[in-house]
Amino acid sequence: MPAGDPLGTHRVIAPKGALPQPAERLDNDFSKVYATEIVVDVQTLNVDAASFRQMEEASGGDPDGVAALVLETVKRRGKQHNPVTGSGGMLLGVVERVGDLAKARGFVPGDRVATLVSLSLTPLWLDRVLAVRPASAQLDVVGKAAVFLTAPIARIPTDMPERLVLALLDVAGAAPQVARLCGPGDTVVVLGAGGKSGLLCAAEARRRVGEKGKVIGVESFPTYADDLRALGICDHVATLDARDPLAVRDAVSPLTEGRGADLVLSCVNVPGVELAAILAARDRGKVYYFAMSTSFTAAALGAEGIGRDVDLFIGNGYAHDHAEHTLSLVRASRPLHELMQRRYT
Amino acid sequence: MPAGDPLGTHRVIAPKGALPQPAERLDNDFSKVYATEIVVDVQTLNVDAASFRQMEEASGGDPDGVAALVLETVKRRGKQHNPVTGSGGMLLGVVERVGDLAKARGFVPGDRVATLVSLSLTPLWLDRVLAVRPASAQLDVVGKAAVFLTAPIARIPTDMPERLVLALLDVAGAAPQVARLCGPGDTVVVLGAGGKSGLLCAAEARRRVGEKGKVIGVESFPTYADDLRALGICDHVATLDARDPLAVRDAVSPLTEGRGADLVLSCVNVPGVELAAILAARDRGKVYYFAMSTSFTAAALGAEGIGRDVDLFIGNGYAHDHAEHTLSLVRASRPLHELMQRRYT
Ligand SMILES: NC(=O)c1ccc[n+]([C@@H]2O[C@H](COP(=O)([O-])OP(=O)(O)OC[C@H]3O[C@@H](n4cnc5c(N)ncnc54)[C@H](OP(=O)(O)O)[C@@H]3O)[C@@H](O)[C@H]2O)c1
Ligand SMILES: NC(=O)c1ccc[n+]([C@@H]2O[C@H](COP(=O)([O-])OP(=O)(O)OC[C@H]3O[C@@H](n4cnc5c(N)ncnc54)[C@H](OP(=O)(O)O)[C@@H]3O)[C@@H](O)[C@H]2O)c1
Repeated sequence: MPAGDPLGTHRVIAPKGALPQPAERLDNDFSKVYATEIVVDVQTLNVDAASFRQMEEASGGDPDGVAALVLETVKRRGKQHNPVTGSGGMLLGVVERVGDLAKARGFVPGDRVATLVSLSLTPLWLDRVLAVRPASAQLDVVGKAAVFLTAPIARIPTDMPERLVLALLDVAGAAPQVARLCGPGDTVVVLGAGGKSGLLCAAEARRRVGEKGKVIGVESFPTYADDLRALGICDHVATLDARDPLAVRDAVSPLTEGRGADLVLSCVNVPGVELAAILAARDRGKVYYFAMSTSFTAAALGAEGIGRDVDLFIGNGYAHDHAEHTLSLVRASRPLHELMQRRYT
Repeated sequence: MPAGDPLGTHRVIAPKGALPQPAERLDNDFSKVYATEIVVDVQTLNVDAASFRQMEEASGGDPDGVAALVLETVKRRGKQHNPVTGSGGMLLGVVERVGDLAKARGFVPGDRVATLVSLSLTPLWLDRVLAVRPASAQLDVVGKAAVFLTAPIARIPTDMPERLVLALLDVAGAAPQVARLCGPGDTVVVLGAGGKSGLLCAAEARRRVGEKGKVIGVESFPTYADDLRALGICDHVATLDARDPLAVRDAVSPLTEGRGADLVLSCVNVPGVELAAILAARDRGKVYYFAMSTSFTAAALGAEGIGRDVDLFIGNGYAHDHAEHTLSLVRASRPLHELMQRRYT
């Protein structure tokens, strides 16, 4: 049995020498067996929010159209790597086979697992799509996937519904980063605070900044804004479009004595919020872009153009122990747990 | 005289409510006078490296083709905002008029200045292009530009040739960020270390990490690699393509006992180096993407895909006192000063 590369380069068809994520095409032939791989029987695809939205728009809101686009992408690329948004998502299934060199990871056939790695680099073969659920950006499928040695996966806990776990693990990187970037007394602004990653960021910020700190949520969808208010984790919730930089600035400014926030998190799943996030931050503050719809140049040139000396971060979807961190955060708050369960299962 | 908005929204034609950088089109009619603006007679455009390269490729290497593309963009958008790369550059000229509300900034008509703000948000009107200089990505032009109240500009010092100052100020944000992100004893990798921003990053890293630290330069162009070696600021210079993540990893790994670098700076002006930068960094290290050709999703999903817990930064072109910091860095080293002068004037 060939070992295969821990980074997965043995599955790259084109271009030669590329790593799996930037590659145009992966080999999804699972009759080939590698000792470093774990092979999973795939049951559910949890598509990245920006990607799902793009496919919905491209097919006029028709779920069958989304299913057809996914099947086409996987057939052409050997992975669900949306060619327009560049993003993926993750998946849920049952371990079918564990390569000899992957045995030390502790998984055995039959384990229910979720990948903590983007679909944009996971070799995937699809037999068919059983259902499309736009509300949770999920598809039920029959298929197989390979997990490389460096790709994190997690066993599904049994105290929560699987679909909720999947939805949470998809944005598992968010809360741990917030925990690192703010502390007691800080003011934190969350753009898109009523969405999935936004709720986790706001909840984590609340427990970090404490009583003396301030958490400000910005959310455009009134129902989500109401849900957020009901949780009681924000000091202020502004119902407005985060793409309007001047409106965001004018909402945050009076709440921070004109100073701006210490930390701004962008969790909005549409393009065009880079500058709003920058304008909401204080001088030498931090702006963390979690949303995949962020434009690198809009952020870099936006800050430069208005002479704002802030630290700009690209959201890293991986952090040590991020799965456990995020599941614990939700377990620790019954209202948050209930809201998440109601929405994402 | 109308005041105009400090952020420059009074010059936005489309879309309504946008800020000048993301706007599709700005008003470059300078018969309209605003009290917050400084109007400059433009002499030289210093085009962003990624943008210049794209225009060169699009016109088959013909300088007249680059001039035609610039004139077309400025006519259509009212600014030199490359529609393909999304990037700009900066300019040099003489102050023509200072609005009443901008007088406190201390500039007077006749001052020779450089804008420290991207051309992608600077209202610009061009009469003609006099010359195109591919070696320095500069164009000599006749035209006018407006500088908003929040847009940093700098008086040109008289102890250096103007074109050198312009070239340095274009990447003035680089060295100050390096100074913040590393300290004594650290190992720093610079990708594209022989280029303009790369040289400044390597020089700054050298003085920050000290004797016990290590500076590793990666540069694909052999002449630039030789220039870099001759400066003596790097402990190691590897002549290789930074787009090859495995080659970069294999070069850095033995120099760091397999650990990876504390800080990796990407200064390479081509797409596709995101993953190489991540692979060169240690666990919990920092990766700073200065190059405008960086893809947000490639960096975010790349790190997640290989389970690397690193902090990823978007290069902010502005930092407090960045112009003075960068000019001082070059003044402090005669060999660096001479190399920069030889190349960029
Ligand atoms: N870095 C990573 O590893 C990683 C992993 C997973 C996801 N992500 C990214 O994180 C982002 C958010 O994902 P998610 O799952 O949290 O999505 P989500 O649940 O759809 O959350 C997005 C939130 O933003 C709101 N919103 C949309 N447009 C807005 C606007 N103009 N102004 C204010 N609020 C607005 C949405 O409201 P509506 O419901 O009205 O649209 C929703 O509440 C996505 O872009 C996704 O790509 C990143
Ligand atoms: N954030 C900001 O405010 C800001 C401001 C200005 C510029 N920038 C960005 O910074 C980047 C660098 O600008 P610069 O003026 O320093 O450009 P530059 O002088 O052309 O430097 C780029 C260097 O990278 C080298 N290089 C190119 N391809 C390579 C590869 N595959 N492997 C290794 N080295 C390679 C180049 O060599 P060759 O000569 O052989 O191509 C050159 O030495 C640009 O992308 C620019 O957009 C950012």
